[in-house]
Amino acid sequence: MTPSQFREEGKKMIDWIADYYEGIENMPVLSQVKPGEIKNRLPGSAPQQGETMEQMIDDVNKIIMPGITHWQSPDFYAYFPSNNSFPSILGDLLSSGLGVQGMIWATSPACTELETRVMDWLVDMLGLPGKFKSTSMGGGVIQDTASSSALTAIVAAREKTTAFKSNENGVAGKLVAYVSTQTHSSLEKAAKIAGIGKNNLRAIDVDGNFAMKPDALKAQIEKDKKDGFTPFFVCATIGTTSSNAVDPIEEIGKICEEGNYWLHIDAAMSGTAMLCPEFRHHQKGVELADSYCFNPHKWMFTNFDCDCFWVADRNHLINTFSILPEYLKNKATESGAVFDYRDWHIQLGRRFRSLKLWFVIRHYGVEGLQFHVREHVRLARDFARWVDESTDFDLVVEPLFNLVCFSHKAGDTFNIKLMDTVNRTGEIYFTHTRLNGKVVLRMSIGQSNTNEKHLQKAWKLILTKARELILRR
Amino acid sequence: MTPSQFREEGKKMIDWIADYYEGIENMPVLSQVKPGEIKNRLPGSAPQQGETMEQMIDDVNKIIMPGITHWQSPDFYAYFPSNNSFPSILGDLLSSGLGVQGMIWATSPACTELETRVMDWLVDMLGLPGKFKSTSMGGGVIQDTASSSALTAIVAAREKTTAFKSNENGVAGKLVAYVSTQTHSSLEKAAKIAGIGKNNLRAIDVDGNFAMKPDALKAQIEKDKKDGFTPFFVCATIGTTSSNAVDPIEEIGKICEEGNYWLHIDAAMSGTAMLCPEFRHHQKGVELADSYCFNPHKWMFTNFDCDCFWVADRNHLINTFSILPEYLKNKATESGAVFDYRDWHIQLGRRFRSLKLWFVIRHYGVEGLQFHVREHVRLARDFARWVDESTDFDLVVEPLFNLVCFSHKAGDTFNIKLMDTVNRTGEIYFTHTRLNGKVVLRMSIGQSNTNEKHLQKAWKLILTKARELILRR
Repeated sequence: MTPSQFREEGKKMIDWIADYYEGIENMPVLSQVKPGEIKNRLPGSAPQQGETMEQMIDDVNKIIMPGITHWQSPDFYAYFPSNNSFPSILGDLLSSGLGVQGMIWATSPACTELETRVMDWLVDMLGLPGKFKSTSMGGGVIQDTASSSALTAIVAAREKTTAFKSNENGVAGKLVAYVSTQTHSSLEKAAKIAGIGKNNLRAIDVDGNFAMKPDALKAQIEKDKKDGFTPFFVCATIGTTSSNAVDPIEEIGKICEEGNYWLHIDAAMSGTAMLCPEFRHHQKGVELADSYCFNPHKWMFTNFDCDCFWVADRNHLINTFSILPEYLKNKATESGAVFDYRDWHIQLGRRFRSLKLWFVIRHYGVEGLQFHVREHVRLARDFARWVDESTDFDLVVEPLFNLVCFSHKAGDTFNIKLMDTVNRTGEIYFTHTRLNGKVVLRMSIGQSNTNEKHLQKAWKLILTKARELILRR
Repeated sequence: MTPSQFREEGKKMIDWIADYYEGIENMPVLSQVKPGEIKNRLPGSAPQQGETMEQMIDDVNKIIMPGITHWQSPDFYAYFPSNNSFPSILGDLLSSGLGVQGMIWATSPACTELETRVMDWLVDMLGLPGKFKSTSMGGGVIQDTASSSALTAIVAAREKTTAFKSNENGVAGKLVAYVSTQTHSSLEKAAKIAGIGKNNLRAIDVDGNFAMKPDALKAQIEKDKKDGFTPFFVCATIGTTSSNAVDPIEEIGKICEEGNYWLHIDAAMSGTAMLCPEFRHHQKGVELADSYCFNPHKWMFTNFDCDCFWVADRNHLINTFSILPEYLKNKATESGAVFDYRDWHIQLGRRFRSLKLWFVIRHYGVEGLQFHVREHVRLARDFARWVDESTDFDLVVEPLFNLVCFSHKAGDTFNIKLMDTVNRTGEIYFTHTRLNGKVVLRMSIGQSNTNEKHLQKAWKLILTKARELILRR
C-alpha cells in the first residue's frame, strides 16, 4: 500500500469510526452471538494472494460487528468503564504510525521524555506525593494494565525484602503478602507468578463498607511473625471492583511504615476521581505508599491500554528488573542521565505509550477532565437516589464515586434473571457481583457519552422488566 | 470532540502519517538530541483548559519529532526490524476506535474468535505442528512481547513440574532452567520474576555458529540431577538477537522429551522466515516443543505490539493463570465452549489484538509475505558477499536470515568508533554486539521499504567512513 493509497483508505477508516460512534446507540450493547458463530464464518486458512481493504472492511461489517459488545456505547454499564475519546484514538494512531520502539532512551528519546513529563504532570493532577516524581527519587512509567503494575510492585517488594537474593537464588523462606477479601484478583495472579504462592497471600477481613480492617491486618501480621513468616507487601485499594470500596490508606500505611512493608495502592478503578480535590480525602495517607497505580484506560477517556504506575524509589524497581545485554549498551545509558523504561516493567519492547495520554490531557485540560468526572459521580448519585426511593430495590452501599451497587428484594435467582433479561434486550448492558454472599447488581457509570437521558432509560427498563418478571412468577 | 470534528482531525492525522512516510528518508535516522532536551521543552504542568489539535500537532512537529529515532526509515538497520505497514496501522486504528475489552469471550466474542482463527492460520503458514491449533489440545494467543511469552512459558512449566504446588505455596526446591549463552535476556528476567532465580538458570555453551551444544546441555542436566536439582525448562532459540544463530531444535527436543522438561522455542527474531518452506529445516523437531513464540511486530509488517504465542496443551496454561472472581462469571465461561484469553497471559484486560494481524495477512497474502521475507534474505546475502569480498572487513558468521554480522579488521575500538561516526551522519543507523568477546557490527535488514539502493548507500558510507578514519589515525 502506497502513502497515497493509505491517504484514501485511512480517511475511509476515519469515516467508518465516526459513523460507528454516530450510530452506536442503534446497536444491541451486548453481542448476541453464540460460541463459535464468528469463528465458523471465518475461512480456515489464510489467503494465498492479497485482498483489498474493501473486502476486509466488508468482513468487519458483516462478520466481526455482530460479535462486538459495545464498550463505547453510552448504554454500557457493565464491569467498569473503558471509556474512549477521539483525541485518544488520534494519539494512538500517531503512535502506530510512528512505529518507534521506546525500550531504551536511545531508541527514541522523545518517547521516554514525554512519558516522564506526562507522568510528572499527573502526580500534581491527582494530588499524589512529590516523591513519585522523576525529579525526586521516584518516578512513573506507563504499564499496560494494573495486573502488570501489581506484578511489578510485588516483585520489587520481594527483592527489597530479600536484598535481591530471590532474583539470584529464587524464592525461599516464608514471605507473606496482604490484601483484603475485596482486592482485585490480579494480586492473587501476581503472587502466583512471582513465586510467593496463593497460600502466602492473606485476605484480610473487611468492614460494613467493604474496606479492609486495619486491626485485622495488624493482628494477622503479628500472628504471621510469631509463626515465623516474613510479611513484606500490603495492597490497599482505592475503589474495589465489586463495590468501589476504599481501604483506609493512612492506617494501613502506618502499619507498613512501622514494619517496613511495601505498600502498593491499587487505584485502577477510581484513581481518576482524584483529579477532583473534593475526593482526595479518600487517599489521605498516600504519601506512605511505595507504589501507586491508576488506569486512564478505565475512566479517563484513554483507550486501552494505559495504566499509570509510580514508585517512590525507582532504584528498587530498576535493580529488580534491569538487564543489560551487550547489544543494548549505549552512551546515554552509561551516562546515567536518562531513564530506560524497559527496566521499569516486565516487557522489553514498548510503543510510544504516552502520546495518547498527552493528547487526552491537553484536549480536555484539567478542568475538562474534572467536569466529566463530576458529571459521572452526579449521575451515580442520581441513580442511587432512584434505587433508594424505589419500593422493590435496595441500595447496597452508598456510592463513593461512579459505581452503584443495588439489588432487587426478590433474592439472588431473581436478580440474575432480571439482569439477563434486561441485557438480552440489547438496550443496555450491566453486570453483577457478590457481596456478603449475595448477588448484587452493578451500574458502572463512566462511558464518555453517557448522560442523564441514557441513565433514565436504563432505570425505566430495569423497573419494567422487574415488574414483568414478578407478574410472570 | 464531536464525530464530525474527528472526521476532520482524523483525516489530517492520516495525511500527517502519509507525509511522514513520504519524507522519512530526509530525516536523520538516529535522533541527535541530548538527554533532557525534549523534556525541558515541555511545560512542567498540565494545561488547566483544553487545547486545540492544531497546537498539539504543532508541538509534535517542533518538540517531539527531533527526539524520534526513525525505526520505519528504510535506512534503519539497528537492533532488529520493527517493521510497519499501512494495513497494520489501519487495523490498529480500528482496534483503538472500537475500544473493546477482550478479557473474556463474553466481553466481545469477535475479539476472541478472530484471534483464535488467525492464530490457527499462522500454525499452517509457519509449518508449526498441529498440536498448537485450537482444534487440538493446544492453542495460540497474542501476547504483547516475547518477554511476556517467556515469562508465561516459564511459569506454566514451573506449575506443570510442581503439580501447581508453586502457585499454592510459592517456589520451593531446586528448579533449574536452561538457555544458551546467546539466549535473549528476557529469559533471565523471566526466571527472576518467576522466583526461579538467576543462579538456577544455566547458560549452556555454544558451538562455532553460536548455537547451543546439545551435549553440553545433556551433561549439565545430568550434573544438576546428581546435585539434587530438578531440571524443568529449556529455551531453544530460532534466530538469536546477537547473531541470528539457530539452536538444534530436534536434538534439544529429544533431551526434553526424555526428561519431561518443558521446551519453549523463542523464534521472536526469525520465526517470520518460516513463512517460506525453504527455511523450515531450521525448525526441524518443532513438534517436540511445549510452547513457541514469534514476533510479527519485528519482521512481519505488524506494528508494535504483537507477539504470537502457542502452547501444545492449553490446560497447563489455563490451570496456571486462571482466576475467576464473581464479577467475571458468565454462562459462556461456565459452558466451557469458549476461550477466555485473560487466562492465557499476565494481563486481565486486552484490546482487540488480532485485527491488525488479520489486516496484514489478508493485505499481503501468504505469497506477498513470502516475497518480502525472501527479498530481505537476498539483500542480507548480498551485503554479506560485499563484506566477504572487501579487504578490510570480515564476515563473522554466514547469515541464515536477514542479519549480517561483520567487523573491521582494525579491532574493537575502531569498530565502535566507525559505528558512532556513521550513525552520527544520520544517513543510516546500525548497532553492535559482542561475539566471542569481540565487538561485532550488525546490519539487521528488515524494514518494510529497504531495498538494494538503500543497502548500497549504507555499504558505501561504511566503506568511506572506515577509510577516512584509517587515514586520520
